[in-house]
Amino acid sequence: MTSGAQHPDDTAAQPLRSDAERNRERIIAAARTVFARDGLNASMASVARQAGVGIATMFRRFPTKEELVDAVFVDRMNAYADTVAVALDDPDPWNGFVGYIETACAMQAADSGFADVLTMTFPTAKALEKRRNEAYEGMVRLIDRAKAAGRLREDFDLSDLVLLHMANAGVVSATGDAAPDAWRRVAALLIQSFEAPARGPLPASPEHDALYKAMLRGSPTDITSSEPGKSS
Amino acid sequence: MTSGAQHPDDTAAQPLRSDAERNRERIIAAARTVFARDGLNASMASVARQAGVGIATMFRRFPTKEELVDAVFVDRMNAYADTVAVALDDPDPWNGFVGYIETACAMQAADSGFADVLTMTFPTAKALEKRRNEAYEGMVRLIDRAKAAGRLREDFDLSDLVLLHMANAGVVSATGDAAPDAWRRVAALLIQSFEAPARGPLPASPEHDALYKAMLRGSPTDITSSEPGKSS
Repeated sequence: MTSGAQHPDDTAAQPLRSDAERNRERIIAAARTVFARDGLNASMASVARQAGVGIATMFRRFPTKEELVDAVFVDRMNAYADTVAVALDDPDPWNGFVGYIETACAMQAADSGFADVLTMTFPTAKALEKRRNEAYEGMVRLIDRAKAAGRLREDFDLSDLVLLHMANAGVVSATGDAAPDAWRRVAALLIQSFEAPARGPLPASPEHDALYKAMLRGSPTDITSSEPGKSS
Repeated sequence: MTSGAQHPDDTAAQPLRSDAERNRERIIAAARTVFARDGLNASMASVARQAGVGIATMFRRFPTKEELVDAVFVDRMNAYADTVAVALDDPDPWNGFVGYIETACAMQAADSGFADVLTMTFPTAKALEKRRNEAYEGMVRLIDRAKAAGRLREDFDLSDLVLLHMANAGVVSATGDAAPDAWRRVAALLIQSFEAPARGPLPASPEHDALYKAMLRGSPTDITSSEPGKSS
């Protein structure tokens, strides 16, 4: 596992003394486990407990949850961006598009924290958001290619991929270990609904700004207000 | 608002002294507000705070969260069952089916707590589960009618309505007030995917027992383990 401190994009991090670096790595490893199991609503306190470090150490290494999210999920977001690149290499635009959706939804099913990351945005998580924006650029090309091939409905919008991930996160979090493959059926239904020709008109996509605001629900103010322990 | 204590199905409730009854009503009203805003993960403590009663009073009136959920949501589940009955009265089986889905998803969008209730089951919430089972019986007839009319794909299963509600809950909770109508687009896409003839095969539905187990995630053990405040 590569510590975030050594990641070339983590420009904010100073070189750390070795015990500090060890703590940082332990916190990241613990957060991977806790977020994968409980999603991003998990408290910083429960990550500290899992890591076996005190709260003070926790907040010294990661003053905000966004910084922790950045360090924990940048690798996953890299893999996600790679999925888009692989899809663009598929000579069949529709196969590429469908393959991307299936892989991306499977990544959500494997990690509750990443399921949340794909439906949220974290403006100060610079490395993570840089990768997400690269993935978005690829997704736009993927959509355009599938439309040009006549296989994707014309009214399909990039925001529909965000909505798909929100729906998939709902199925994944509700079915969990009890019915771990249930999401595949919902994803397959949605893929069939995306296929051209459209069976009918759709309600308008949400405005870009509105959807962005919805994805900001994980920003510091919201995370604080929804953090377990703060409300009870 | 009818107090749960006066509901004919709430056989467990004893006649209460008037102050006790007043507390009970305050708690139910507070829980309606808190669950509608935060979903069923909201803690009993936050309901008590909203009601302005102590924790001891709270647990004297509602020893378990299931009993509170039963008292709070039986009216909503009545309305849900009514929606199914209205759909069955529609002379056009497909119109009835689609109208039911739109209304049921709108009920989820209006109340985060009820959005959770439709994807969970609470074995000791007797009144609520009795209504849910009545609704399920109607939904089976609704599905059969729409298939017989050749409008609903043959491989559609009752469990697909549960998965639909899980997906919709994911969209509703992720978009919230920022994009309050986004769920309509996802629901419309799913409805188009349900329409006959099917565009292709689907992965199998989850086993009945597996989906039931997933819906049990709100049972006392799970509620305790996921209750905010317990984990931090």
